[in-house]
Amino acid sequence: MTEKEVNLAFLQMVKSFGLEDHEVELIAKNTTIKFFPKGTVLLEPGQVAKHCYMVLHGAVRAYYLKNGEEHSTAFYLEMEPVNSFTSFTQSIPSRHYLVCAEDAWLTVGDEKIEQKMCMLIPRLEHIIRREVEVATGKAQDEHDLFIMSSPEERYLRLLKERKELLQRIPQHQIASYIGVAPESLSRIRKRLAVKA
Amino acid sequence: MTEKEVNLAFLQMVKSFGLEDHEVELIAKNTTIKFFPKGTVLLEPGQVAKHCYMVLHGAVRAYYLKNGEEHSTAFYLEMEPVNSFTSFTQSIPSRHYLVCAEDAWLTVGDEKIEQKMCMLIPRLEHIIRREVEVATGKAQDEHDLFIMSSPEERYLRLLKERKELLQRIPQHQIASYIGVAPESLSRIRKRLAVKA
Repeated sequence: MTEKEVNLAFLQMVKSFGLEDHEVELIAKNTTIKFFPKGTVLLEPGQVAKHCYMVLHGAVRAYYLKNGEEHSTAFYLEMEPVNSFTSFTQSIPSRHYLVCAEDAWLTVGDEKIEQKMCMLIPRLEHIIRREVEVATGKAQDEHDLFIMSSPEERYLRLLKERKELLQRIPQHQIASYIGVAPESLSRIRKRLAVKA
Repeated sequence: MTEKEVNLAFLQMVKSFGLEDHEVELIAKNTTIKFFPKGTVLLEPGQVAKHCYMVLHGAVRAYYLKNGEEHSTAFYLEMEPVNSFTSFTQSIPSRHYLVCAEDAWLTVGDEKIEQKMCMLIPRLEHIIRREVEVATGKAQDEHDLFIMSSPEERYLRLLKERKELLQRIPQHQIASYIGVAPESLSRIRKRLAVKA
């Protein structure tokens, strides 16, 4: 994706929030869009998150290290916000990594930029809050479904609802994301292939 | 708990948000606090959530029915907000139940009351947003830990961090909450008792 296309994608996203043209312009002028090569570490355990991101192109992965093993807990693709809320909002050191799973174009925000924009466009506070609530709703639903499902059901839901993830993310990272060892995911895939 | 004590608990909570006395008064005047007997269904599948709640006293449980079985996915105790964000924010029918797990005193809010209060106290929008972000951070962390943990580790974490829940909520509901059948939870508890 070219920088021009990335900027266009960003403008379209901001417009979708129902803002006036001059407000969109103001936001665009105050927003930093940066390119991060695959593998860039955006946040690591012990660091306090100072930035929040939105994926314009590429992918970001959240993972923890536990007993020397990586556990992937979230993947963010195009137009998804990337926030480590506990660390960012309460200045608590992060317990996880945020890393670019692909070359990525991201918007980069911080507390100060956010405050400035909310001062310039007061109703932005409400818009951001609604966006946070929608994202929270999605996270709530995802957690509920995770609790209720078997690993095979979790994999089938990814196939149905986030197929792109399965095409773009290595299988061993998907395995920990649905709560199983890589060998178990291979077994699930084989079983499903036989059924199909 | 008497109604007077409940009101006092509410005032203390509102004050903790860093509001001025006259703002606290305004909020108190516009907030409905209601008593719900144990078993009251606050929301059920198919219904659009019109209200959001805060537990002042008692407990609320979220659960799904799947193949005729209850799967508890959240428990809310004192001073915890109860929101079904996807349904409330986007007017989408809920997929879960919200039910009072104990006799409960709850604040009852809706879109209209919220808008009115934010008009009367503009910075309330920011305060609510921060509260939502903190709650979201907690939910994020909980989901991450859930993915990474075995059922035994999940139980041990409840013992350490939310012991009260184990004392107040029936064991079969705790079982589905940590993702196991009731018999498995019994085995976990026995194993831990032998170790102790």
